[in-house]
This record gives sequence, structure tokens and C-alpha cells, in this order.
Amino acid sequence: MQKSRLEAFSDGVLAIIITIMVLELKVPDGTSWNDLSVLMPKFISYIISFLYIGIYWGNHHHLLHTASRVTSQIMLANLNLLFWLSLVPFSAGWMGESHFARNPVALYSANLFLAGLAYFILQKAIEKTAHPDNILAKALKRHSIKGIISQIAYAVGIATAFYFPMVSVTISFIIAVIWLIPDKHIEQALH
Amino acid sequence: MQKSRLEAFSDGVLAIIITIMVLELKVPDGTSWNDLSVLMPKFISYIISFLYIGIYWGNHHHLLHTASRVTSQIMLANLNLLFWLSLVPFSAGWMGESHFARNPVALYSANLFLAGLAYFILQKAIEKTAHPDNILAKALKRHSIKGIISQIAYAVGIATAFYFPMVSVTISFIIAVIWLIPDKHIEQALH
Amino acid sequence: MQKSRLEAFSDGVLAIIITIMVLELKVPDGTSWNDLSVLMPKFISYIISFLYIGIYWGNHHHLLHTASRVTSQIMLANLNLLFWLSLVPFSAGWMGESHFARNPVALYSANLFLAGLAYFILQKAIEKTAHPDNILAKALKRHSIKGIISQIAYAVGIATAFYFPMVSVTISFIIAVIWLIPDKHIEQALH
Amino acid sequence: MQKSRLEAFSDGVLAIIITIMVLELKVPDGTSWNDLSVLMPKFISYIISFLYIGIYWGNHHHLLHTASRVTSQIMLANLNLLFWLSLVPFSAGWMGESHFARNPVALYSANLFLAGLAYFILQKAIEKTAHPDNILAKALKRHSIKGIISQIAYAVGIATAFYFPMVSVTISFIIAVIWLIPDKHIEQALH
Repeated sequence: MQKSRLEAFSDGVLAIIITIMVLELKVPDGTSWNDLSVLMPKFISYIISFLYIGIYWGNHHHLLHTASRVTSQIMLANLNLLFWLSLVPFSAGWMGESHFARNPVALYSANLFLAGLAYFILQKAIEKTAHPDNILAKALKRHSIKGIISQIAYAVGIATAFYFPMVSVTISFIIAVIWLIPDKHIEQALH
Repeated sequence: MQKSRLEAFSDGVLAIIITIMVLELKVPDGTSWNDLSVLMPKFISYIISFLYIGIYWGNHHHLLHTASRVTSQIMLANLNLLFWLSLVPFSAGWMGESHFARNPVALYSANLFLAGLAYFILQKAIEKTAHPDNILAKALKRHSIKGIISQIAYAVGIATAFYFPMVSVTISFIIAVIWLIPDKHIEQALH
Repeated sequence: MQKSRLEAFSDGVLAIIITIMVLELKVPDGTSWNDLSVLMPKFISYIISFLYIGIYWGNHHHLLHTASRVTSQIMLANLNLLFWLSLVPFSAGWMGESHFARNPVALYSANLFLAGLAYFILQKAIEKTAHPDNILAKALKRHSIKGIISQIAYAVGIATAFYFPMVSVTISFIIAVIWLIPDKHIEQALH
Repeated sequence: MQKSRLEAFSDGVLAIIITIMVLELKVPDGTSWNDLSVLMPKFISYIISFLYIGIYWGNHHHLLHTASRVTSQIMLANLNLLFWLSLVPFSAGWMGESHFARNPVALYSANLFLAGLAYFILQKAIEKTAHPDNILAKALKRHSIKGIISQIAYAVGIATAFYFPMVSVTISFIIAVIWLIPDKHIEQALH
């Protein structure tokens, strides 16, 4: 019962975050393809961010599955995660608006890094409540190696942003694609 | 359990898409009916888009009914569908703002085409999991003829947009109305 | 199952409508109380509209309770109701922005009238499916007298808007307050 | 059944309030850290408001748990609470936009005070329906001392805003942090 409301609230917030980002794509004044192509950096920012929020939704969904109950700690850790994700429309908007300038790209990578950290904290809080023989919980634990690699990649992305911002954008995109590939262990645990 | 959260997230995103489109209808500065009538193209775009999102919600609702479980493939295909639908407020806004100019109308038709394609991919992913004797699943399969005709109509709409944009707008509207007519096979399958 | 998703989608749309109206209240540039008081007409529009969406949510909630199943007709009638309600932020915004000018107030009353009509159509579609001995359904039927009076009041409000717009605003407000008073028959039916 | 829809609607509204606040953080035109730091007051307003909406969601969640049924009074009291919370994005936006000027800070404290009052009214309405031996209901009653202290603090915050606005902002922040500390009685009642 309790868990379902935590899910409902998180689903609501994630659904809104993923959708209001499109409001950053302001309708162009002209009607030529040129007027539209100016929006390309914003559109790329939108795609990457859409992927990230979608991936977080999927992982969050699996993670909460393994929680046997909702503690205050889980509620706080969840709120913390939603906070960092709620900043994605802003940092993605700045990155797109600036056509991938250095500082905005660094901020975006930092945002992804902090959201990843918040997810890790939530995972730890939920693991405490999971039944020891929950196979999904075990699959998610193995998962965390992917999480650590992502965190290192985001940290690298923050650094490279000041020299080659497009490298950082590419890193963010590649990490998103890696997360999109279904994880065999999780697939098996769900069946 | 899992399916209900996929539905909740999709419902949230679709509810937000359908509602934020109204934000494109900026309140006019004056108070005459003339000031209001300038918004007519935007309002027409809003009506068509509202119908489409509403129809997609209804079809999505029936389609997910037939899924026996939620695979990673379904989650990805669903995210892909939501992505294309999330662009409808933008492409509808451009179409309305430009008073149905050629390029924006073509883009809108292309958006409907790509959303239709994404729906088809989701349908294929869900069909794989459906029980073979699910009568709703069978009704939806028969349904796909309507889907193929719609896709052809949208493709025609993209082409005609460059010569007679209003023809494309009319096509989009007619296809929406066709989908609004309740399908007898589905009605029966639901009873 | 089906009904719960119709409720979820409607709840989502109504929750968004009620909340995005606050986006019309643009933060003032200055910091004096005078700068704030300029927003008073918008704020009054917001209060009335908030009440209406809240009341519609409550009534919708009771009405769907009495539906034994979700037909295509109910889905369409529900979509129609959500459409007219989705225009409330726009018409309320115009009314507030114009400081209760004639045309905007008439449009707002017309919007309430059309939403009321849409609700009536939905009620008829749902009544068809209700079990004959459902006491809540009976209580809601008695309810429809209140609905008819409201419709007449909105129609009067459209007419008076062109001469005394504040009378129309007052009518809208009074009708909202009347609906806020809990209905004894429904209260009893729910216990 | 009924309760779950009240929760769903409230969750929806709270999720939207917490998320649209980020729309007040307008993407800066420049790309220097200076351009970003101008947003600091808005960002602080965002953090405090995010915490408040998050806390209200958590408390609302626990409070509704103790309701044995949903009366008209509860529905009205809930709508009243959502109304005051829906104004938080506006008052937080004014406070941030004005860089913590006197009047906006006073308005923000007043908003928190009125939301607290609305919560108290909802609590009273729900207590009436709670089973006498509900331990969570008892824990929440003990909780109300924290509520009364908060109300006094907000009232002090309204007064100090006219002399030392930063003191009021600090009070709001400290009260938020106090509410974030998990309550032992509630934790126990939930286990």
C-alpha cells in the first residue's frame, strides 16, 4: 500500500520532468527548415535527457520492487533523487540554449553525476529492507558495477567539458545507450 | 503489479502532454473577438492534437491489457512511443503559430507518422507476450489494418503539405475522427 | 481494472489543469504590495477556476463509482469533458488578464456552460451501465437538478457578461460555492 | 477504493507543484558562472519549496493512512490544502526573483502559515474518521505539537520579514529541516 503511493508520486514527478522539457523547445518564429535547425542543439539535449529520465524511471521501478517496506530513510533518499532529476530540464535547457558551451556542458555532466549519486544512496537504503533471497535485489546489486562506471564517466565528462565539450556530450549519450541495453540478470530475475 | 506502473507512468506522460498543449494558447492582449480569432489556427491544432493524444491513450490502454508481462523490449518501445508523442505539443504549436504553413504542416504529419510507427513497434513487442487465445489481442491485430491505412495517409499528408497544407491538416483530422469511431470487435472483446 | 485507468488518466489531467493555472500568475517585477495587487483579478479567476476543477474532480469521482464498466461511449464522453475543462486555464487567464472585461467573462461563462454540458453527456453514458439498484447512482440522478440550475445560471452569465460582467463573475462564484456544500443524499449513499 | 483516488489526485497535484517550480529557473542567456550565480536566490527558494512540498507529501501520505473513509469534509479540507500549496511556486518565485525582498519574504512565510493551517484542518477532519485504536493516528496526534511550533515560527517569520528578511528565510529553512528528521513514534507505528 505505502509503496504504491511512493511509486505513484515518483511516477508523477518523473512523468512531469520528462514532459516539461519539451517546453524548452520554443516554437520558432519563421517557417523555414533553417528556423527549425537552430533548435538542433536543444533537440539533442532533449533526446539525451529524455533517455536519462526514462532510464531512471525503469531502474527506479525495478529497485522499488525489491523494497519490502518504505522507511523514512527511503522516502528522504527518494526525494533527494527526484530533486536532482528535477534540475535536468534546467541544465539540459542551458546546455542546448548555449549550443554546448563549456560551463553548461560541465553543469549538465555534474547534474548527471549528482543524480547518479542520489540513486546510489537510494539503492543502499532500499537494499537494507530487501529480503536476503530476493533474486531481483541480487541482480540489481551486480548492476551497481554499471553504476560505478557511469559515475566515473560523468566525472570525466565534467573535466573534459572545459576543453572539448562535445566529448562530454558524447559520453553522456553513450552512457545512456549502455543503460538502454536490457540487463540479462534483471530480465531473468523478473521472469 | 509491474504493468500497472508502466500504465501509471504512461498515463502521467500522456495526461501532461494533452494538458500542456493548452499553454501554447497564449492569452490575447486585447479583449475583442478579433483578438481571440487570431488564435483560431492554434485552437484547431489544439483540437486535432487533443484528439490524437486521447485516441493514443485509449488504444494504449487496450493494447497494454493484452500484455501478459512487461519485458525490457516493451519498456523501450513504450518509451519510444512517448518520445514521439511528447513532440506533438511542439509540432502542433509550430503548425498553429505559422497558420498552417507548408513546412510546419509537413513536420506535424511526419510527427504523427513516426508516432504511429512507434505504436506499431510497441504492438509487436506486446503481441509476443499475449496469450494465444486472448480475444482482445486478436481484435487489436485486426485493428492494425486501420493503423496501416493511417500510416499511408500521414505519408500522403507529408507530401501534400508542400503544395496544399490544408489538405494535410484535413487528412490528419479525418484520420483522428475515424479512430474515434468505436471498433465493434474491441467492444465485443471487452464485454 | 479498466475503470481504474480511466480514473488515473482523468485524475492526471485534472491535477495538471488545476496546477498549471497558477503559471498564469506571473511573478510581479516590483516588490511593493501595489505590484502584487495588480494581480488581484487573475487571482480571483484562479480561485474560481480552482474551485470548479476541484468540484468537477469530486463529482467525476462519484460518478465513475457508479459505472459498472467502461464503454467506448464513456471514454469519448470523458475525453470530451476533459477537453472543455482543459480550456479553463485559458479562458480564466483571459478573464483575469483583462480585469473582467465583457467578452472574456462571456467566454469564461460559455466555457463553464460547455463543460457542464459535457458532464451531463458523460453522466448519461455512465447511467446506462449502472446497476439499477445502485443507491449512489440514484443519488446522482437527483443531483442533476442542481446541474440543470447551474446550466441555466451559466447561460444567464453569458448574457449578463455583455452588460454587467461582474454579475456573471459573481454567478460563477455562487454556483461554485453551492456545489461545494456536501449533498446529503450522496453522503448517505457513500456510507 | 475512494481513498486511493483522493491520494492519486493529491499525489498528482503535489508532483506537479514540486516540478513546475523548476520552470521559474529560467535558463540564463550567457554561459559564464556569473550568469548562473544570479539565479542563486531563485535556486535557494526552489530548494526550500521543494523540501516543503516533499514534506507535505510525506505527512499527507501518513495522515491519509489513518482515515477510515473519505467524507465530503475531508475532500474539501484536502482541496483547501492543495490550494495553498499550489501558490507556493508563485510566492517562492516572487521571493527568489526579488532576491529576498521584505514583502515577498513576508508573503512566502504567510503562504507557509496558511498551508500549515489548512493541513491542521485536514488533520482534524481525518481524525474524526480514524479508528480509536489506530496507533498511527495516535502518533500523528502527538505530532501536532511540532505543527503548532511551526505555525508560531511562520508567524514570527512574517513579522521579521519586514526588518530582517533573511531571518525569515532561515526560519523557513530550519523548520523544513526539522520536519525532515524522521519521527520515531511514526516510524514505530508504521512497523
